[in-house]
Amino acid sequence: MNTITPAKAAFGFDPKDDLNDLRMSEKATPLYEHVKRFVHETVAPMSEKFHKLGEGRADRWGYAPGQLELLEEAKNQAKKEGLWNFFLPDAETGEGLSNLDYAYIAVELGKVPLASEVMNCSAPDTGNMEVLERVGTPEQKERWLKPLLNGEIRSAFAMTEPDRASSDAKNVGMSAVLENGEWVINGEKYYISGAGDPRCKIMITMVKTSPDAPPSRQQSQILVPIDTAGVEILGPMHVFGEDDAPHGHMHIRFTNVRVPESNMLLGEGRGFEISQLRLGPGRIHHCMRSIGQAERALDLMVRRGLSREAFGRKIAWLGGNVEIISRARIDIEAMRLMVLKAAKAMDILGNREARVWVHMVKAMVPERVCQIIDQAIQMHGATGVSQWTPLSRMYTGQRTLRIADGPDEVHHLVVGRNEIRQYEGGGEDQTSGVVWRN
Amino acid sequence: MNTITPAKAAFGFDPKDDLNDLRMSEKATPLYEHVKRFVHETVAPMSEKFHKLGEGRADRWGYAPGQLELLEEAKNQAKKEGLWNFFLPDAETGEGLSNLDYAYIAVELGKVPLASEVMNCSAPDTGNMEVLERVGTPEQKERWLKPLLNGEIRSAFAMTEPDRASSDAKNVGMSAVLENGEWVINGEKYYISGAGDPRCKIMITMVKTSPDAPPSRQQSQILVPIDTAGVEILGPMHVFGEDDAPHGHMHIRFTNVRVPESNMLLGEGRGFEISQLRLGPGRIHHCMRSIGQAERALDLMVRRGLSREAFGRKIAWLGGNVEIISRARIDIEAMRLMVLKAAKAMDILGNREARVWVHMVKAMVPERVCQIIDQAIQMHGATGVSQWTPLSRMYTGQRTLRIADGPDEVHHLVVGRNEIRQYEGGGEDQTSGVVWRN
Amino acid sequence: MNTITPAKAAFGFDPKDDLNDLRMSEKATPLYEHVKRFVHETVAPMSEKFHKLGEGRADRWGYAPGQLELLEEAKNQAKKEGLWNFFLPDAETGEGLSNLDYAYIAVELGKVPLASEVMNCSAPDTGNMEVLERVGTPEQKERWLKPLLNGEIRSAFAMTEPDRASSDAKNVGMSAVLENGEWVINGEKYYISGAGDPRCKIMITMVKTSPDAPPSRQQSQILVPIDTAGVEILGPMHVFGEDDAPHGHMHIRFTNVRVPESNMLLGEGRGFEISQLRLGPGRIHHCMRSIGQAERALDLMVRRGLSREAFGRKIAWLGGNVEIISRARIDIEAMRLMVLKAAKAMDILGNREARVWVHMVKAMVPERVCQIIDQAIQMHGATGVSQWTPLSRMYTGQRTLRIADGPDEVHHLVVGRNEIRQYEGGGEDQTSGVVWRN
Amino acid sequence: MNTITPAKAAFGFDPKDDLNDLRMSEKATPLYEHVKRFVHETVAPMSEKFHKLGEGRADRWGYAPGQLELLEEAKNQAKKEGLWNFFLPDAETGEGLSNLDYAYIAVELGKVPLASEVMNCSAPDTGNMEVLERVGTPEQKERWLKPLLNGEIRSAFAMTEPDRASSDAKNVGMSAVLENGEWVINGEKYYISGAGDPRCKIMITMVKTSPDAPPSRQQSQILVPIDTAGVEILGPMHVFGEDDAPHGHMHIRFTNVRVPESNMLLGEGRGFEISQLRLGPGRIHHCMRSIGQAERALDLMVRRGLSREAFGRKIAWLGGNVEIISRARIDIEAMRLMVLKAAKAMDILGNREARVWVHMVKAMVPERVCQIIDQAIQMHGATGVSQWTPLSRMYTGQRTLRIADGPDEVHHLVVGRNEIRQYEGGGEDQTSGVVWRN
Repeated sequence: MNTITPAKAAFGFDPKDDLNDLRMSEKATPLYEHVKRFVHETVAPMSEKFHKLGEGRADRWGYAPGQLELLEEAKNQAKKEGLWNFFLPDAETGEGLSNLDYAYIAVELGKVPLASEVMNCSAPDTGNMEVLERVGTPEQKERWLKPLLNGEIRSAFAMTEPDRASSDAKNVGMSAVLENGEWVINGEKYYISGAGDPRCKIMITMVKTSPDAPPSRQQSQILVPIDTAGVEILGPMHVFGEDDAPHGHMHIRFTNVRVPESNMLLGEGRGFEISQLRLGPGRIHHCMRSIGQAERALDLMVRRGLSREAFGRKIAWLGGNVEIISRARIDIEAMRLMVLKAAKAMDILGNREARVWVHMVKAMVPERVCQIIDQAIQMHGATGVSQWTPLSRMYTGQRTLRIADGPDEVHHLVVGRNEIRQYEGGGEDQTSGVVWRN
Repeated sequence: MNTITPAKAAFGFDPKDDLNDLRMSEKATPLYEHVKRFVHETVAPMSEKFHKLGEGRADRWGYAPGQLELLEEAKNQAKKEGLWNFFLPDAETGEGLSNLDYAYIAVELGKVPLASEVMNCSAPDTGNMEVLERVGTPEQKERWLKPLLNGEIRSAFAMTEPDRASSDAKNVGMSAVLENGEWVINGEKYYISGAGDPRCKIMITMVKTSPDAPPSRQQSQILVPIDTAGVEILGPMHVFGEDDAPHGHMHIRFTNVRVPESNMLLGEGRGFEISQLRLGPGRIHHCMRSIGQAERALDLMVRRGLSREAFGRKIAWLGGNVEIISRARIDIEAMRLMVLKAAKAMDILGNREARVWVHMVKAMVPERVCQIIDQAIQMHGATGVSQWTPLSRMYTGQRTLRIADGPDEVHHLVVGRNEIRQYEGGGEDQTSGVVWRN
Repeated sequence: MNTITPAKAAFGFDPKDDLNDLRMSEKATPLYEHVKRFVHETVAPMSEKFHKLGEGRADRWGYAPGQLELLEEAKNQAKKEGLWNFFLPDAETGEGLSNLDYAYIAVELGKVPLASEVMNCSAPDTGNMEVLERVGTPEQKERWLKPLLNGEIRSAFAMTEPDRASSDAKNVGMSAVLENGEWVINGEKYYISGAGDPRCKIMITMVKTSPDAPPSRQQSQILVPIDTAGVEILGPMHVFGEDDAPHGHMHIRFTNVRVPESNMLLGEGRGFEISQLRLGPGRIHHCMRSIGQAERALDLMVRRGLSREAFGRKIAWLGGNVEIISRARIDIEAMRLMVLKAAKAMDILGNREARVWVHMVKAMVPERVCQIIDQAIQMHGATGVSQWTPLSRMYTGQRTLRIADGPDEVHHLVVGRNEIRQYEGGGEDQTSGVVWRN
Repeated sequence: MNTITPAKAAFGFDPKDDLNDLRMSEKATPLYEHVKRFVHETVAPMSEKFHKLGEGRADRWGYAPGQLELLEEAKNQAKKEGLWNFFLPDAETGEGLSNLDYAYIAVELGKVPLASEVMNCSAPDTGNMEVLERVGTPEQKERWLKPLLNGEIRSAFAMTEPDRASSDAKNVGMSAVLENGEWVINGEKYYISGAGDPRCKIMITMVKTSPDAPPSRQQSQILVPIDTAGVEILGPMHVFGEDDAPHGHMHIRFTNVRVPESNMLLGEGRGFEISQLRLGPGRIHHCMRSIGQAERALDLMVRRGLSREAFGRKIAWLGGNVEIISRARIDIEAMRLMVLKAAKAMDILGNREARVWVHMVKAMVPERVCQIIDQAIQMHGATGVSQWTPLSRMYTGQRTLRIADGPDEVHHLVVGRNEIRQYEGGGEDQTSGVVWRN
């Protein structure tokens, strides 16, 4: 007879469990509807003008005249309508959107790339604001959180290093040494997203402060203003040839960069602890948006398949194409349910307990979405790799997600380890250093 | 800008939609708990005795002395405790278990193979009883439904034919011709599951009555008592070498088999229509049980991986094994959510509208479960293919499911077609003849 | 008992068959060694200078001062050393390199991108020269073949159209109508590789001249000088954001383009016939180079895997990475043998009989090479998608090959059809319009 | 510029290298033709009679009257015609069939299962005879090799143990202790193929004699007559429910089994060394036969696809089936070339240097052949899993090969390690204990 193993129990397979209620709450409905309308009626037309203005601009790493004004106007409108900073729980009551509710809203945000910024809900600012809100000193909050919450400046998160395998979060090479009340920082970071934007003023920077401490207590996170002497932006990193100006994924060298001792976040050796805090609604953004990308790719695939003929039939009906379309639909629905369940798990079990769900969806979604976009490319023939469809851009974006915030392999290690652990008292642990940035 | 395509709407991606509430109902809780307890406390020990009695039996195609008595006793107990026929909605009020609730209960039924029969909820009787309940004449109900509901006899469903591609339900070769108030039936059927059981008395048989009618009106379903003259059981079909005696998947020849005109179900040419009725809770059984099999395979895989060492490490931690385990867990959770959503869709949208969900899970689940079992086999080395684990039996069972009730390819055709159809007024339709048996 | 089926025979499985001798010929050895040395000692250093000169150039769609001089110098050197046009069989004797010998040499050519051009063996000139050599009139040869053979001009092949599924070669939309002794051409072509180069003077253009003829007699190939009135280069098509200037994959509109009647190649309605002639050594280039790309990706993958550590081990040894490396090696060797066998088959059986082998390798190689490069990217983490490795460029190049010269699906259709055909007298033929360009 | 890496060199990519000449030798032609004729004219009809005689036999673990006589007659005929023991190189001159020539002959042997035995070329006898030939003492040869060479007895090779991961050949649990001039052996072995045959008289048994020696010097191989006291055959192991009587894959317990000290092969602690000797033509058998199985599966797949219709078309032409057929053909050809190349590598480089080629084909072939057979099953619908085609037997046979002689994973580890090693001075070695049995 088959017995119920611990594994099953661990995945909350209790029929009546609220984990299985994946509906958006009644409470969030008005906000959801409002965001949807605002994206459609305000952000979308603004966005079109914004991009038109930018097309001929002289400096790809800056903004064209009128662009920022347009953006500010929309941001002010969002503030006025109360669509501002809703990613962040109330500082005093702790109340805010549930992860599940936010997941549904993220789909709407994902429909126009500028929407998140207009409502001040865009990465990596969201994660940075959360961290400052939770562990910042009053001075740090006044100096950096306030302008961030007001949308006056932007920020970056400097974690990945060019000469280390970042899949292991213990692999931090950049050193920070305390000298005369100042942290002196040396090293290199790369793929610092958003650091190319002229409005980016502050970086939360992961450094190694305590090389002799136990592995998980060696790292710290420090606030480094981007204009500090010794911070040298070497150039933008490309993603399949694209530099993503003016946002940019910058390569930065730190040479004897000095910041006041008080720029330390939370305390020396507590960098890991802070990373755990970065587990908020932001995480769900990416996966819900990836699913949005997959929907779009499937939509383009079918439309193309019906608009071209070969060998006397529409190509959607040729060979294995119907099955490719079927598998895309099935997997999109399965991924959507998994992301919603992960969001719900965070709401009910808390970030710590729900962690394996988050790793599951991060391991599952971008890999499969890449494949669906790739199949859409194939259905388009040469047009699929061209500038005439968004597919190649979508592909490279999703391809990068299979590496960013931990490569697929690391997420599978965590999920597999979690499964195995239920059968042992302990065992080999290869992956204890896994953290994510967002 | 990405717009909401019809496809998305069609998949009910409305955040507040009850389709996304996958919890078992409060109402079903007592039954669920009762079944769970009954399986554990009554069926499981009975089952062990039953199989022991059968081991040395002279006639593999019959039962050993004492076996049927044991079974009857358990069935009486189930009746007494009210755990009987609960698969079937109330004949008058139409009330019954929702598909979602039944899906959760099916998991418990699946834990001991005899449990379904003990509670009179085993295929193909369930589907046959549903059909008789809905379309049977008073005489047909009296003669066949009553003893089936009482668990006095068993039944079979004769659809698949050896010389036709059964993936296309229009491919019925067996003819039935009306002569002097009797249907005269000629042809062959195979893989008639359950027809080997000495208690099997009646077959619902798919025949071609109207070869000149439009394709979907050519077929009929007729009641054929298994002891009718001309019904010749040629032998059992094997499944990877296994004959599954005494249940059996029989190969049957019909030579001038004559049954009264009144044995026709619903009416001449309405065989397809009846097939649509066979869309009940039974459908969800298989997929929920498949997931149970995957859970069991994963459980065995991990246990084995921790009990053997090679090259100085437990094999669960070697090479790609952790990732294999991770992918199994992720896909099991995704499949479970999909099956539950399909059940819920049937409850809310009705069988017709929910049809594509059912095809999605049938296309998705057995294929992936086969692969998980196969990986568990590989983790066991030679023991994995041996009689020392249930894995090879589990594999061949699941492998067969990829063919039974329509091969994977047909389900993908339906799902892909549904996706494509949303973009056209109509278009080529290759798969209109798809029906399932259960 | 298993009998020898026609299929086996058809694949030449005769143990002593010379098809199985995949060694380069003795005869070709001196040329092979010479090319190898020339690429290493002459082309490689020239190439470095060439690219340095081009870096700052004002016009991306032209050449920087000194670039073409450098190239001409190397070409003259190649001519002087007898390393010129060796892709082409002797016009009179028909003697030339075998496909197998050329395949081995192509590997060496592939090691430095400029090498082919320096020895006048680069696509699409090679195919165009072959066609002119075989079917050109004396006037056509004098006017276009001579300067091509001398490396004085370059050429293009205009086949693909933006609004047709080019997988079906019958799908030619561009019309050519004879008026007063001139062909008047109207339509659009895109992905015309090489048409961006200022030295490109002539295009062989696929047109539809006879819409009422049987499908395979409707098309013709016509010589169109690129500076003819009405030829409008609309712009470069991108490949994953890359425009490949100044070579370019151009989008060209033809509006009432008039060329003399004598520009027709071979004869009206014989466009297909000419396409069959384009089956020469050029075809093998791509696949041998793809394998070279896979070798390089594997090399980079292993080096990276040994240069980074995570969780206390070099990442090459982590998780499933060793198996990924193993599978890459195995598949590279298998692909190499298949390409060599295809080349040998062309040598022994002739292009027509060997056709299915060519389709087999075209269907097999680019798909798998894409995957190997993708795995190398993953092993590199963020660096893998950056400008710091050639991997993203390699990927997009190979990805495009899965579409160019017929998408994978079409090659599989031809191979599968060939297999099925051996069992039938005829049957449905979906793919008779398949031709390749090169 | 791409440079030639050591890896490429290591794979002998020298165009003129004889490694690339995969033709059977002229010398072997007469034998090849003779075997082919003999299998067709003599073995095939005998085989049919043999199986007919066996059908009703009382003892499944013995032979029916007349069966062995029939076999002996055919064996005598083979001897008379000189078709006997040709797997074995001449004891004095060392001359014999090359591996490549033998590979081609193995295809013919594989066409009728009894053919190998009739010509005394069947496993595991071939490997055992080779070992005895090379390392046996005169007494051992007289006692065991002679009757084996004469086909008077049969033998087994006892290596795998039920409670160890046999993927690591150092995992030998069975102990042999020297007491008073006798080895006393205790432990269990399973999957001892051929030990069920009443003619099996001797087992070469892998034991651990020196637990304190370095890992690769702890094992020894000892001759154990199957009728020695203490050898207890517990029963046959099943393979997907099949026991393969009377050959059998036996589970055997050794309890204080005593054999003379002189039964040791080669010397104490030299068990590994002997395993290296077992690298002979036998290895190639399996892979060539697997390819034969794939050919047969593809043949059945296409025939079925042309004999059934659904949705108005033959199913071979439906959906992705043409592509499935194409991929099967492509992979069969690629596998065939790889196996031939591995055979040639053994001939030219010697077993030691060619080792990685052998691991490559063992990792590559059975996995893919399983998949092709599985696809043939799917094309057959329910008939595919039934007793009406050989497919389910073929599947389980190939599935087992993915485990036997080392699971796929171990072969990939060896191949991947070999690739990585070319870049390092040494590095982590997980797999040094890999040996094969055959």
